[in-house]
Amino acid sequence: MVTARELGLWADGKNSLNPGKHNAITDVPGVRVGHRTLSGDGLATGVTAVIPHAGDLFREKVRAAAEVINGFGKSAGLVQVAELGTIETPILLTNTFGVAACSEALIRRAIADNPAIGRETSTVNPVVCECNDGQINDIQALSVQPEDALAALSVAHDGPVEQGAIGAGRGMTAFGFKAGIGSASRLMHVAARDFTLGTLVLANFGRAGDLVLPDGRRPDPRQVSREEKGSVIVVLATDLPLSDRQLQRVARRAGAGLARLGAFWGHGSGDIVLAFTTADTVAHDGPALRSITAIDDNLIDLPFRAAAEATQEAVLNALCAAPTEIGRTGKRYPSLADWARENAS
Amino acid sequence: MVTARELGLWADGKNSLNPGKHNAITDVPGVRVGHRTLSGDGLATGVTAVIPHAGDLFREKVRAAAEVINGFGKSAGLVQVAELGTIETPILLTNTFGVAACSEALIRRAIADNPAIGRETSTVNPVVCECNDGQINDIQALSVQPEDALAALSVAHDGPVEQGAIGAGRGMTAFGFKAGIGSASRLMHVAARDFTLGTLVLANFGRAGDLVLPDGRRPDPRQVSREEKGSVIVVLATDLPLSDRQLQRVARRAGAGLARLGAFWGHGSGDIVLAFTTADTVAHDGPALRSITAIDDNLIDLPFRAAAEATQEAVLNALCAAPTEIGRTGKRYPSLADWARENAS
Amino acid sequence: MVTARELGLWADGKNSLNPGKHNAITDVPGVRVGHRTLSGDGLATGVTAVIPHAGDLFREKVRAAAEVINGFGKSAGLVQVAELGTIETPILLTNTFGVAACSEALIRRAIADNPAIGRETSTVNPVVCECNDGQINDIQALSVQPEDALAALSVAHDGPVEQGAIGAGRGMTAFGFKAGIGSASRLMHVAARDFTLGTLVLANFGRAGDLVLPDGRRPDPRQVSREEKGSVIVVLATDLPLSDRQLQRVARRAGAGLARLGAFWGHGSGDIVLAFTTADTVAHDGPALRSITAIDDNLIDLPFRAAAEATQEAVLNALCAAPTEIGRTGKRYPSLADWARENAS
Amino acid sequence: MVTARELGLWADGKNSLNPGKHNAITDVPGVRVGHRTLSGDGLATGVTAVIPHAGDLFREKVRAAAEVINGFGKSAGLVQVAELGTIETPILLTNTFGVAACSEALIRRAIADNPAIGRETSTVNPVVCECNDGQINDIQALSVQPEDALAALSVAHDGPVEQGAIGAGRGMTAFGFKAGIGSASRLMHVAARDFTLGTLVLANFGRAGDLVLPDGRRPDPRQVSREEKGSVIVVLATDLPLSDRQLQRVARRAGAGLARLGAFWGHGSGDIVLAFTTADTVAHDGPALRSITAIDDNLIDLPFRAAAEATQEAVLNALCAAPTEIGRTGKRYPSLADWARENAS
Repeated sequence: MVTARELGLWADGKNSLNPGKHNAITDVPGVRVGHRTLSGDGLATGVTAVIPHAGDLFREKVRAAAEVINGFGKSAGLVQVAELGTIETPILLTNTFGVAACSEALIRRAIADNPAIGRETSTVNPVVCECNDGQINDIQALSVQPEDALAALSVAHDGPVEQGAIGAGRGMTAFGFKAGIGSASRLMHVAARDFTLGTLVLANFGRAGDLVLPDGRRPDPRQVSREEKGSVIVVLATDLPLSDRQLQRVARRAGAGLARLGAFWGHGSGDIVLAFTTADTVAHDGPALRSITAIDDNLIDLPFRAAAEATQEAVLNALCAAPTEIGRTGKRYPSLADWARENAS
Repeated sequence: MVTARELGLWADGKNSLNPGKHNAITDVPGVRVGHRTLSGDGLATGVTAVIPHAGDLFREKVRAAAEVINGFGKSAGLVQVAELGTIETPILLTNTFGVAACSEALIRRAIADNPAIGRETSTVNPVVCECNDGQINDIQALSVQPEDALAALSVAHDGPVEQGAIGAGRGMTAFGFKAGIGSASRLMHVAARDFTLGTLVLANFGRAGDLVLPDGRRPDPRQVSREEKGSVIVVLATDLPLSDRQLQRVARRAGAGLARLGAFWGHGSGDIVLAFTTADTVAHDGPALRSITAIDDNLIDLPFRAAAEATQEAVLNALCAAPTEIGRTGKRYPSLADWARENAS
Repeated sequence: MVTARELGLWADGKNSLNPGKHNAITDVPGVRVGHRTLSGDGLATGVTAVIPHAGDLFREKVRAAAEVINGFGKSAGLVQVAELGTIETPILLTNTFGVAACSEALIRRAIADNPAIGRETSTVNPVVCECNDGQINDIQALSVQPEDALAALSVAHDGPVEQGAIGAGRGMTAFGFKAGIGSASRLMHVAARDFTLGTLVLANFGRAGDLVLPDGRRPDPRQVSREEKGSVIVVLATDLPLSDRQLQRVARRAGAGLARLGAFWGHGSGDIVLAFTTADTVAHDGPALRSITAIDDNLIDLPFRAAAEATQEAVLNALCAAPTEIGRTGKRYPSLADWARENAS
Repeated sequence: MVTARELGLWADGKNSLNPGKHNAITDVPGVRVGHRTLSGDGLATGVTAVIPHAGDLFREKVRAAAEVINGFGKSAGLVQVAELGTIETPILLTNTFGVAACSEALIRRAIADNPAIGRETSTVNPVVCECNDGQINDIQALSVQPEDALAALSVAHDGPVEQGAIGAGRGMTAFGFKAGIGSASRLMHVAARDFTLGTLVLANFGRAGDLVLPDGRRPDPRQVSREEKGSVIVVLATDLPLSDRQLQRVARRAGAGLARLGAFWGHGSGDIVLAFTTADTVAHDGPALRSITAIDDNLIDLPFRAAAEATQEAVLNALCAAPTEIGRTGKRYPSLADWARENAS
């Protein structure tokens, strides 16, 4: 696996922020990522899990927001995230027709841990997002099963994140190149403390010929794609204390990172951002009045910048980590890493 | 099955509109409703299908809007309805943990009719809404299966709508009374033509002691319910030509109908309205420029009023049609019809 | 001035809350209300000021939300309230064409107190809402001046609130009756402490024949009004600690109070709610990380109920406090108090 | 006046669209632009007017949408645009404290042309947007008067648009450079017809050091600016038939154009887009059912791309057209044109 920085594709601006240790979403303490990949017999799909913290998420929810940049998408759980500002399950990414199976897995898992769900207490809101990997994967097979979701959850770990054509990213493409999972992070210094913001993207968007690199070059995958039909999911994690309104504002800035790559959030693209903070979790049975911490709005440009940068770089990482692949109909999706090596300056 | 009007519970105002032939959502030409009910062995749940027209909905979508009055809910499909202003599958209602099964059924059904889905053309957006029937039904059994959804679709018909403890309404309660499915309709005269607006509700909301009848009486189910934990789904259909922005505005007025019953759209309630018009369907492969018809905004108070009235009456019909039932934990949910007969003026 | 309760027009439900000492928005500690009324020579208009606390609002902002129930309105300041969740000036109510003059007054007043505004620090966001009093007032005269706004601010006081045809309410009508300013409040007991939620309405909405009293009666002003053309502004204050997301949710419930009166939030009506909490004010120059308190969402039905009830009663109070008046074109707007006395049960 | 293209600062991508004749918003037939500039004695401000068509806008409204990218702004009229999807006055741009004066001018002008306003018919919704030019202009002087707004309207014309430090752009800065008014346009071929989309920006945003040119270069104005405090208004016009929902989606894509320049829509920035189509104007007194035309959503990537490109280029044009200027506190805002000439490749 090679990164955009290793290939010389990242260019810092004058005000750019530094990445965290692994330049990945797992630089946010407690956040873990796991993949389950399905391959062979026409299948090229999977599930990727992002687990916000090690505890019981139903009992200790994370403050969260969902930003719909373009809503051509079939996610589960966003309506309740918008109303309540919390996420109470791990976040699963998969292909468009795998959402139901992943939802079922999250429901059964939550009930197993909390037998009062739906009886003595409220039901649980599974959060699942998706892209259509039908260019490479036989999506009509509805091959993702609840056990695949559980498998992704069970192998989740911290430290370096496997990227590229893996997990939910197995069959994804972007800007005419092979793509998939990417990740990046940024450090922020606030009130004499260090905080981290990380993103993980499922990149499956962008019309061939539109990609712009930070240095202005425009890699051409040398094939005609008539229209943008993909999607992109951004999961954004931080340990910076943000109110749910602030999380929404930060989530929106992931869209700036996408636009800097040449995207314009195409019609057929489900461009969705889920953001959460691990600060001040929300107890399912909490006190009547609870105290939370939030950054002063006057300092919020810092996570804004981090969100835009980390999203932009995470997509580049997804493009660099994924090897060349031939699609279901014989179309070739080259690797951006190969392009970078051939066009090294 | 008895209705609120038959029991003398409906009171027209000075500006009230007249109901359609069946006083039901099926008064809108082409709209059909089907139920699949699951009972016995602790089960008291099901699926209710609303089919907007007789054609292929993926190829001929209906203009639509989704209004989230309170988003404590786990629906499928709303994000895309909000972005595109169309619905391209039947609308299914079920219990909270039946959403995944119903989504899968809608996806498989759409693919069977349109093999290009997810391959040569875009994926399909299943629309499913839900309430938690866990007071009566063993919701943790996840008993609703894709075949139950198909069964509800297969028996859908026009004409009178079965109401009360049937289909998705089998295990629902409202204001401490037994509730479930209800329906009503209103006629509107515009531009020398007759149009109809109909609603179908899945009523599972409202705290005991809060119900207010149109004549000001407040029926008391004589038992203590500590908190409002339910939800209500309103499906609103019309043949009046409305733009998707106008549909959103009309959908919002269903909330006024709920409030007139004493509801305040409680925290734990997923109060969601789906609205569609059968006028000017949207072809999946349409012309580059297409012509649509819409009512003058200056006349839109007419469907506003119809939406509020038909929603209010549909809930009363759900309450009147459902017989008394004992819940999972022995709690008694009386019939409003019995109350009405005992308190006839 | 007579109130709805004094006239026997208010009916408590089983779960109703108790009003505060004055049954007015000023029951929220620190909140003051002032009126400036313009009368004579065809004028029947004015300004009403709600001041959230006694300090410098630009330096100590209140957490706030704005809910647009129906956006046929010409308010100032709502876009920034939605983005930042704060209000940093007093709230002014006036007629539709008085918004500019009131905005200018708030800007000049804020600059006078904070000479850094627009130079060393950000500009200030004046918050002004309006209804069209053109049925009684010569609105084309643009008679409201900045000094009228300052006059309303200068006489603001706590204690009982003058209601009816006064201040911004001077020329307003509702449901075919004379209306204007009304207020009410509710007490809430949370975490062994007492909190208050109060509303002040500028009532100018509702079609003649639609008004429903809590006891189900429908007062008829005995004249034909072809269409609903009015608006209603609700200012909602509380000392309960609510996050800005929670404030938005509470604000929305004011719409339930309006609907219970028979309103359906008509097309031509600017139905807007501004809500603020005096808990945990937001310093203009605050610490990098700040701590705020918020109620547990599981208890939020309490302020929801309070918002619906206090809005419903405040409108009834506006209708009861205003005497009969003849409009610009000779139309008679009777007093609901007269109706109540003639129809006492 | 020099443009970004003339200075070699624009780089077409593989899928880029062609500009219209004047590469300006006035390439959309019927659209006119006028400026009123106030200078001297510490003043450096003004008003810019965009007039959608030559008729009476109150009687023939344009379909419109408002997209709030970041709501730290004090505009007038956006709430009603969002609700009704129409604009019924010219659009005025000015400094933050000039909004009230411009609103008053638009109200008086509309009443003069339509004496029924506020009496026999509804009131009028003035649309005014703003940025804070306090770095150069003495904004506390509240120098913009209603007659300045009328002056800008009276000189509006089609053909080439004066850009840079003129009209509302007189005192604006962006990315540490002098900025102001910019414009650009794109041609679109749909259904064998030619359509145009044009933008006019009031550019006053972006932190020094963040600007990225299309070729990847990052011009440095060589001075430290601690924070982004500006705003940007984008007015987007087209003759392509778009529904108001579609207009909202197109308006959102202006944000992609801003992001490609290095912006991340900073906290203190009021980043607002107003979009309108001149196709199918909306009669104030129209027929009960009206027919409108709209592009097929499957083709909407075309105006999406046009909006992003034209916004990006319009900002570059604003930066190139404005000469170097010294601010109120002695800070130097250089001209990007000078930078481009010094750094020609």
